[in-house]
Amino acid sequence: MIPLHLQPESHVPLYIQLRDQLRALVHGGDLRPGDRIPASRELALQLGVHRTTVANAYAELESEGLISGHVGRGTFICADETAKKIHPAIPIAAASGGLRWEALFADERGEEVLSRLMQAAPRGAISFLMARPATEFFPIEELRNCTNAVWRREGSDILQFGASDGYPPLKQALIEMLGAEGYGVSDENLLITDGCQQALDLLCKAFLRPGDTIVIENPTYPGALAIFSGARVRILGVPVKTDSGPGTTPGVDVSAIESVLMQNRVKMIVLTPDFHNPTGTTLPVAERRRLLEIAARFQVPIIEDHIYARLRARGERVPSLKQLDHSNLVIQIDSFSKIAFPGLRVGWIQAPPNVIDRLRLVKQATDLHTGHLAQSILAEYMRRGRLSRHLEYTRKAYSARLAALEQALATHMPAGSKWTRPEGGMCVWVELPAGFDSNELLIHARERGVLFAPGRYFYFQNPQPNTLRLGFAGLNERDIARGIATLADVLRGEMRKRQRGARRAEVPRVALV
Amino acid sequence: MIPLHLQPESHVPLYIQLRDQLRALVHGGDLRPGDRIPASRELALQLGVHRTTVANAYAELESEGLISGHVGRGTFICADETAKKIHPAIPIAAASGGLRWEALFADERGEEVLSRLMQAAPRGAISFLMARPATEFFPIEELRNCTNAVWRREGSDILQFGASDGYPPLKQALIEMLGAEGYGVSDENLLITDGCQQALDLLCKAFLRPGDTIVIENPTYPGALAIFSGARVRILGVPVKTDSGPGTTPGVDVSAIESVLMQNRVKMIVLTPDFHNPTGTTLPVAERRRLLEIAARFQVPIIEDHIYARLRARGERVPSLKQLDHSNLVIQIDSFSKIAFPGLRVGWIQAPPNVIDRLRLVKQATDLHTGHLAQSILAEYMRRGRLSRHLEYTRKAYSARLAALEQALATHMPAGSKWTRPEGGMCVWVELPAGFDSNELLIHARERGVLFAPGRYFYFQNPQPNTLRLGFAGLNERDIARGIATLADVLRGEMRKRQRGARRAEVPRVALV
Repeated sequence: MIPLHLQPESHVPLYIQLRDQLRALVHGGDLRPGDRIPASRELALQLGVHRTTVANAYAELESEGLISGHVGRGTFICADETAKKIHPAIPIAAASGGLRWEALFADERGEEVLSRLMQAAPRGAISFLMARPATEFFPIEELRNCTNAVWRREGSDILQFGASDGYPPLKQALIEMLGAEGYGVSDENLLITDGCQQALDLLCKAFLRPGDTIVIENPTYPGALAIFSGARVRILGVPVKTDSGPGTTPGVDVSAIESVLMQNRVKMIVLTPDFHNPTGTTLPVAERRRLLEIAARFQVPIIEDHIYARLRARGERVPSLKQLDHSNLVIQIDSFSKIAFPGLRVGWIQAPPNVIDRLRLVKQATDLHTGHLAQSILAEYMRRGRLSRHLEYTRKAYSARLAALEQALATHMPAGSKWTRPEGGMCVWVELPAGFDSNELLIHARERGVLFAPGRYFYFQNPQPNTLRLGFAGLNERDIARGIATLADVLRGEMRKRQRGARRAEVPRVALV
Repeated sequence: MIPLHLQPESHVPLYIQLRDQLRALVHGGDLRPGDRIPASRELALQLGVHRTTVANAYAELESEGLISGHVGRGTFICADETAKKIHPAIPIAAASGGLRWEALFADERGEEVLSRLMQAAPRGAISFLMARPATEFFPIEELRNCTNAVWRREGSDILQFGASDGYPPLKQALIEMLGAEGYGVSDENLLITDGCQQALDLLCKAFLRPGDTIVIENPTYPGALAIFSGARVRILGVPVKTDSGPGTTPGVDVSAIESVLMQNRVKMIVLTPDFHNPTGTTLPVAERRRLLEIAARFQVPIIEDHIYARLRARGERVPSLKQLDHSNLVIQIDSFSKIAFPGLRVGWIQAPPNVIDRLRLVKQATDLHTGHLAQSILAEYMRRGRLSRHLEYTRKAYSARLAALEQALATHMPAGSKWTRPEGGMCVWVELPAGFDSNELLIHARERGVLFAPGRYFYFQNPQPNTLRLGFAGLNERDIARGIATLADVLRGEMRKRQRGARRAEVPRVALV
């Protein structure tokens, strides 16, 4: 019987506690070379933990060379490593090919599937892959004018180190914009970031420890998952309701959030209530109020990703969670990336002063501050009233593109397909007939020069393989119509193959599940 | 007697172990509301740990509301919090002032002492506080020309999302510069960052888990400590030898690194071999070779902070660790911040391809990519041959400033003071006579309009209170001479006070220890 004492309450993950305690027992001589340790199933039972916990701890100790498993015989403490640990002065001989870097990486990281797909896109392809602004509307000449103005006026400030919370003229311009939108915001409520991706990274560092729990939509923006899983945070998903039409309530399932909060100690809720990526859904105001009431009851903060909210194509504006919040619960993250120019990498966080104060220190330890030149140009662009005009113009253009997309879908898509009806943003979420796998469809669509993002990449649990995301902002109406006609054609082709396959098998069941 | 078992072997800090175990005892009902727990001094004695350990654990539990101290009566378990923790499903009533954000922060963060000191600087002060480039040399007009060129030529690319490893034209310009310096570097060896601060953050994310151990100089750049301690990494310090002159070997103590590697499983060594911040020392080539041999023997990677290396004022160039590395051990981080324009926030990492490949994913999850505009301007500035000319010019200017600083120190500083003799970089490290505290000296120096960085802020263990850092790059020769004359005058005044105090006390001991 090995003396192990795990603390489920600790912020240290159980498998790390177990790994460290076993390691300490070896170093202390309580476990010796050749000693057999229990099978993972057995030890899990004994400790009252999940078997994966023990398996993870064993895997780490094995990779360190501290234990080794022998099929049919069991798992044993290794001789060499023990000697090395007790006498750590014995250096390891240098490997001939130099350092084995892969063995040193802190974790496994997924592939950047979307960018790879994009790189592999055939020339001239019609790509619904990305949710990003249309390049053709970039006002390069105007930005060049702004740049000349700021170089002349404030060149030295731009080139020198500055404040971690942001370049003062940009903060001032944002305070005016947000004030006009009804937010009571002052300098101490704002921190400039390199965009929403960094905002999530900073918030993760400020609030979350390994093993802490957060709630997020499933499906969701994969970049958010990359941050939280990289920080070893436990991620709980809540479904997003995508049915539209009378009597339905689109958006994140607020009741599901409530039951997750009842059963788990949740440190943070991360949501995109407006034109959610990837589903395009918007949470109705009544549901927002209910969500805020629940979060206040459990005293759990909400991170509101507001990045798409200004891209409303039609319908009534819905107040943001931040605007509805009377309990000082909401941190809003926002960016110029979707409403203006992603390549400049500038966004911001709106939060209570004590949160901004903390984030300022985190930002300082992350990259000192966001680059001044991009900040100063955006400040000038806003001061000249150009941002709101640009936004108005692109909003109308995207609205027309969304309409074109919906018309094309209605015209071409075969029966059995469904799609969301976003009131803005940059993407529509399509559900293919049950049994279809959009990854497979993509292979055939690519051959015909059409790309989209398979739904699978946005799920971190319960993936629905028959879903896909269409990003429409970067395509003109003609390409949208052509692209959807092709996509529908490919889909119908696949449906025919399925029917033939089903007839051949003479069994009336779906062949491609 | 409370049943507590701390494990000094564990990577979990003792105070966190203690905090977690006490919390578990409360949750488990072993400690109940109203129970008195021992005074920190008493418990420290009982456990054989430092009193600060217990004090830190108590402070955290108190901030959680789990315990509370009453002067003269002792420290007790609180009633409310216990109930809340045992029944986590019972929602907490919303506090009237909204969420208590402070209770949610993931860790304690130090203050940004240097920037606060800077903000509080009297107008017209002579400030040796910062190690940053001189504003008066910024070539604003030339950069404006570069900017106009890149807007015209590549405006759309600049404004759109791009690759996480960097903007291709800047990578190309760096490959040419590094190639000319003798590095065999291609596109797959480079990743663009927002500067060295972010480079360290990315490397920390890619390689280190909570509890992993790194080695770094003590004293060191506080921004590096902020990253690693924020990531809950165990930081082991090795001393930096600051004596100059014949027979001495300046720079990080390589033998100390070797003995740390013999006694600890170290995941990474982080060093600034050239013009080390804060000491200004440069590691001789023989010591670099010895260091590489040791690191290869133990198979521990080295992060070489190369940020100051191009600012050589005099003497022979020393090959970098990266250039001397035959074992594929060294990752070099570098930046435009000290050689050019810190406000643009652009730096880079040079590493083996598999490391860059991993860092690209980490960078993507951190902020997608570095802003394009700053990258494209720097690429254009380099293509025009302007960077090397700017660097040549500022190197000469800083060299003259360094000479002026040394002359002023030699002329004015009272006997008993020592200082390093850097061959470049941006700072000189001063050791006051034993017993002096540079923090105290700063109070008096500030009143006389002179600022410097007390040495204490660069130490994370064994602080030497009688040290200070003088950043000279941003001050002209006249201000340097005036500033040092004033500083020496203040120091002499304090020495006289000490002598009077010592005479009055009629005991020949140091008064200010």
